[in-house]
Amino acid sequence: MALMSISMSNFLIKSPNPQNTHLRFRQGLAIPHKRSFGIGHRTGRILCALIEADGGNLVELFVKGDLRDLKRREALEIPRIKLSRIDLQWVHVLGEGWASPLRGFMRESEFLQTLHFNSLRLDDGSVVNMSVPIVLAIDDKQKQRVGESDRVALVDSNNNTVAILSNIEIYKHNKEERIARTWGTTAPGLPYADEAITNAGHWLIGGDLEVIAPIRYGDGLDRFRLSPAELREEFVRRGADAVFAFQLRNPVHNGHALLMTDTRRRLLEMGYKNPVLLLHPLGGYTKADDVPLSWRMKQHEKVLEDGVLDPETTVVAIFPSPMHYAGPTEVQWHAKARINAGANFYIVGRDPAGMGHPLEKRDLYDADHGKKVLSMAPGLQRLNILPFKVAAYDKTQGKMAFFDPSRPQDFLFISGTKMRTLAKNKESPPDGFMCPGGWKVLVDYYDSLAVPENGKIPEAVPA
Amino acid sequence: MALMSISMSNFLIKSPNPQNTHLRFRQGLAIPHKRSFGIGHRTGRILCALIEADGGNLVELFVKGDLRDLKRREALEIPRIKLSRIDLQWVHVLGEGWASPLRGFMRESEFLQTLHFNSLRLDDGSVVNMSVPIVLAIDDKQKQRVGESDRVALVDSNNNTVAILSNIEIYKHNKEERIARTWGTTAPGLPYADEAITNAGHWLIGGDLEVIAPIRYGDGLDRFRLSPAELREEFVRRGADAVFAFQLRNPVHNGHALLMTDTRRRLLEMGYKNPVLLLHPLGGYTKADDVPLSWRMKQHEKVLEDGVLDPETTVVAIFPSPMHYAGPTEVQWHAKARINAGANFYIVGRDPAGMGHPLEKRDLYDADHGKKVLSMAPGLQRLNILPFKVAAYDKTQGKMAFFDPSRPQDFLFISGTKMRTLAKNKESPPDGFMCPGGWKVLVDYYDSLAVPENGKIPEAVPA
Repeated sequence: MALMSISMSNFLIKSPNPQNTHLRFRQGLAIPHKRSFGIGHRTGRILCALIEADGGNLVELFVKGDLRDLKRREALEIPRIKLSRIDLQWVHVLGEGWASPLRGFMRESEFLQTLHFNSLRLDDGSVVNMSVPIVLAIDDKQKQRVGESDRVALVDSNNNTVAILSNIEIYKHNKEERIARTWGTTAPGLPYADEAITNAGHWLIGGDLEVIAPIRYGDGLDRFRLSPAELREEFVRRGADAVFAFQLRNPVHNGHALLMTDTRRRLLEMGYKNPVLLLHPLGGYTKADDVPLSWRMKQHEKVLEDGVLDPETTVVAIFPSPMHYAGPTEVQWHAKARINAGANFYIVGRDPAGMGHPLEKRDLYDADHGKKVLSMAPGLQRLNILPFKVAAYDKTQGKMAFFDPSRPQDFLFISGTKMRTLAKNKESPPDGFMCPGGWKVLVDYYDSLAVPENGKIPEAVPA
Repeated sequence: MALMSISMSNFLIKSPNPQNTHLRFRQGLAIPHKRSFGIGHRTGRILCALIEADGGNLVELFVKGDLRDLKRREALEIPRIKLSRIDLQWVHVLGEGWASPLRGFMRESEFLQTLHFNSLRLDDGSVVNMSVPIVLAIDDKQKQRVGESDRVALVDSNNNTVAILSNIEIYKHNKEERIARTWGTTAPGLPYADEAITNAGHWLIGGDLEVIAPIRYGDGLDRFRLSPAELREEFVRRGADAVFAFQLRNPVHNGHALLMTDTRRRLLEMGYKNPVLLLHPLGGYTKADDVPLSWRMKQHEKVLEDGVLDPETTVVAIFPSPMHYAGPTEVQWHAKARINAGANFYIVGRDPAGMGHPLEKRDLYDADHGKKVLSMAPGLQRLNILPFKVAAYDKTQGKMAFFDPSRPQDFLFISGTKMRTLAKNKESPPDGFMCPGGWKVLVDYYDSLAVPENGKIPEAVPA
């Protein structure tokens, strides 16, 4: 198939004028089946057509098939570090190149640049965005076991070798400083900090990562876990001349759908011929009261089945990153990772990656800071930021519509709390709020929680 | 006099090869007397010879003499905001261009970039370092008084108009987030936070600053308060072809002197003909247990009088900034401000701008992080960072010398605590630790504290 020769950066500034391109509007599956790929052999071709990965080349850190056994044997000879569930998700993220050009868990220089500057300066002087620390904590005993070794094996909970970390550097894990600089608070109750930092070791170990084999979860959702290289292949296969990414960790309602459809319309108006939506739910660690990934994926499937979104111009895939809930800091990570997957447009909502303050009765972040910080972030200048328009239920039309401030009385804001209460009570939202199939999934989810062991129904979070 | 035509940036990489320069080795005063200058009329010439100010032009925000009365009258017609002592120091800092290219108290976009990126992106896409927020807090009542006005008058404690702030923007002051992102902790007991943030208003007001007249403190030290433009003039007058800055807020002992002398020697070896030292004690707010500015200045004068430092190649001046004690974040500010004053070399010590953790028995920052962060900081690439060599008392030589790890038994580390205890007890340190005149000042200072009102002797901090 023909490849596009133009650069996709800065499209909002300069409208595309594709020359010598023969776009093929192949009707792709909305949800491509996972195929088994060799590593990296296609990226050269794909990168020509889409926005360049950070650092110029998409990093993939998987060991080639014929070397895997060798590496597994090598791993038996070196000190081992057991990975937590979240550590494993970061191995997945690093291995597939979502954090390109990062080639492993951060060493101190990368950690410090991330904390202080939300960006990394590369050897050639260029700057890439990197806002959340991707680090591996070890405790005193593990550090002692590593001793003078310059490499360690990373193993999963069953002691299977997952990866090798080489040219390692061990440095202090100042948890308070890490939390303060990442979240802008040290209040106890930050979900990621509670889960992965507070009780973690006092050392961090960085190095070059070699991942033995692609990470699989065996939860029936692996087919959605497309790597950046696979997504890039899919976008090229569909002849996308713009890719707009929508990060989410909540059910999709018709307000979201309206926004995504409207974004495509705007991109077409700007001169793009085939903008493709990357509907990209986060699949790593989320806090207990978020709707679990499996239920969200069911809901997203229904939304596509019901035709609310066009399967021909939508790719649904899972973003394997754990969630920090670090607001303006984290939204940069969410955007940067999607550049690596080929997206040159990023839709940003109100209070992205935000949550309530753990101790105070207020949102942790100003709802507008995410959008503002994203628009000013180092290394993200070539990504086009599309601020979320506010959608609400228009009673005069009986459907979700963009809020019209000239007639506020006509609009009903259905908050996350309201949606949750309705679904828990098996009540229906107004017609047109969410497609019936999607709504039923949500009702079924809360139904499944009805008689939990402790007798308490977990609280869901606002959409 | 002839001006040098070469750029002074990146001298560590490329040795200078001055062409067509006629350096004049005029014997300048170590401590120049303050002269009265018009505003900005010399900067064009001076900038040619020294490292460029951040953003290309040194900003000076003073109202020209003939317009002052007009501005004072204007100020009577607009809402007033009373400045704290620290606010006034920031007006001083901004007015003289230490924070160039900042033209006033930060608006929200500058505040957010400072907190998240420690740098500002300028309209031309270039990046300057800016690591500490320079902001003005107001409370609800003040905000109400400002109302719809687009400008305010800033007045001192005697209600004299100090400045006018125009095109104002008022935005939320999230103190917790500001403190967490600036200090990497929110522990109570951070001196600057206790003094200037915790009890400050819940709003910040940014805008364009016009300072009516140069800030004077009337404490006998104003002659040392040279602006960046005045320092640049002095360096040019002395024919400096390199300026190396040494930030300090403690008495100078012979270890410091050795370091500064050695730095000059190294710069001469590198091919510079006349490196000049900017010995630049911080003159703004410091915590209660630091040695006060007036005593430090007396001590520094003695050091120069006693010939420990060469007055001909040393300029002693006061840096008007308040102290944050924010370690790796603040050291960037200290370095960046000195670029604006013409310094192209910056000496960085162990744990710069550090202090003990307010609650825990440890240093707040890793002693090496300041140096590391400084070397990687955005916008500071053109500044040459000179890491501090460790000096200690060499018992075999009876003087301060660079520590030789091959014979540790010969060295005596005289900590700040030790120095303080000796001075308090009117004991003498080993010969050669500090010049006798300087030591006497220190003893006199502690003597002056001997019978304070509350009967307690304040603790001094380690040097």
